[in-house]
Amino acid sequence: MRLGTLTIVGVGLIGGSIGLAAKKKGLAETVIGVGRQQATLERARTLGAIDVCLDLAGAVRQADVAVFCTPVDVIASQVVAAAKTCSTRTLLTDAGSTKEAILCDVERLMPQGITFVGSHPLAGSEKHGPEHADANLFENRVTIVTPTERTSEAAIERTVAFWTALGSRVKIMHPSAHDQAVAVTSHVPHLMAAVLASALPDTLRDLAAGGFRDTTRVAAGDPAIWTGIFEQNCGAVAQALERLDAEMSRFRQALANRDWSALRQLLTQAKKVRDALGS
Amino acid sequence: MRLGTLTIVGVGLIGGSIGLAAKKKGLAETVIGVGRQQATLERARTLGAIDVCLDLAGAVRQADVAVFCTPVDVIASQVVAAAKTCSTRTLLTDAGSTKEAILCDVERLMPQGITFVGSHPLAGSEKHGPEHADANLFENRVTIVTPTERTSEAAIERTVAFWTALGSRVKIMHPSAHDQAVAVTSHVPHLMAAVLASALPDTLRDLAAGGFRDTTRVAAGDPAIWTGIFEQNCGAVAQALERLDAEMSRFRQALANRDWSALRQLLTQAKKVRDALGS
Repeated sequence: MRLGTLTIVGVGLIGGSIGLAAKKKGLAETVIGVGRQQATLERARTLGAIDVCLDLAGAVRQADVAVFCTPVDVIASQVVAAAKTCSTRTLLTDAGSTKEAILCDVERLMPQGITFVGSHPLAGSEKHGPEHADANLFENRVTIVTPTERTSEAAIERTVAFWTALGSRVKIMHPSAHDQAVAVTSHVPHLMAAVLASALPDTLRDLAAGGFRDTTRVAAGDPAIWTGIFEQNCGAVAQALERLDAEMSRFRQALANRDWSALRQLLTQAKKVRDALGS
Repeated sequence: MRLGTLTIVGVGLIGGSIGLAAKKKGLAETVIGVGRQQATLERARTLGAIDVCLDLAGAVRQADVAVFCTPVDVIASQVVAAAKTCSTRTLLTDAGSTKEAILCDVERLMPQGITFVGSHPLAGSEKHGPEHADANLFENRVTIVTPTERTSEAAIERTVAFWTALGSRVKIMHPSAHDQAVAVTSHVPHLMAAVLASALPDTLRDLAAGGFRDTTRVAAGDPAIWTGIFEQNCGAVAQALERLDAEMSRFRQALANRDWSALRQLLTQAKKVRDALGS
């Protein structure tokens, strides 16, 4: 894939990394950045993640591909706004952590003939801002692409080609299957990290060592962004929490019964799962 | 502090790091390693963590300080066995993650005139074996030293000097206060990490990205070692779980009520706590 113009809406960690990767891989001749904060756009330009910045309408009008890397609760309205000025050859996609709510809104409001395909690169972190962007962020990471019944094969292929060109492996999932999966792999773990962090009294802060830091790291993520994610995916999160409760009660029961052989089996099973993920 | 002979019982990640740090800092002339597995002791010697290996009785007889870095459920019996051959000038200490059960057993069975002071360097990880040992492991890390009513000032001072010489900051706590604190900062987070790992179905393994890996990393720890820790500290762990439940129900309630402003406040508070810990 070779693009004339790539437009990135929201040039933070993910948007900035898309710009840097696109440059490094020679994917796009020109990368246009769009954002609310001029200072952030300037930093992104200095870092080489974007070439120029424009307003949304102007940036999307010229784009071969426009990717929305903004908070999940604004993506749909930005996509619909962009659709008014973009050409029918423009591919619109996103990097949001939820998919069903965004696709539902977009497909309801989108003008005929404009193409949006939902995407989610699994490459975020608790950091934010273009200064944490990395040209290699997508290497060997999975991007989930979530076509619906209304998405054409050609649009899916272009979206897959886009993320593949940035270094990512692509997995195709239905939006609702995506949302259920990331509720388990990301949203509920985020919730637990936040709960564990909140339960730490100030007096014990000195004693929080490597294990606590790892386990709670994601709780440093932006509360506004994460509130939007939980709002959009609350159904799947509630289901995933039920699944976690069932697992949790097996551990609690072993502790309550002082059944150390059962607890050891549970810890062994957990280690097996974790070891399979690598470091 | 300068020691003639330092004996390390259990030369894994922690024991090996004590040996390497003692060598690097010139703390001990000779470092003797004790362990069940000859291959591990040989690796530790090759890595420079110990000079020689001996059996427990022989190694402790010569020691100025002997430090027990074995699983928590064997420390007390090893200390008591060592006490039979060691001199009254020998300081016995340990690196176990629990303190009250160990001290209770040791003080009940210890011969008159032999000194044991409980210690816990907060420097463990999910890794194990001397190949993961690090001479700088204790730099800027906290070691908790847990004297009881029976511990002399002189013994406390020597124990503090020992860990300080290895690069550690030392905090003095009562054994039961230690156990309650680490239940919150380490044992319950470990449990949650194991629960999260266990709840990951095989089909979603591909989708477990950085956040999931961080949150569950400690679940790769040795199940036998962790079962021993939970067994010895089950009372404090149960209390810490109650505290976590109370925190958890605030998050659940916000989700159930779709009260996004409340959820955002909770996530903001969690971020504040996590940010204060640094990366």
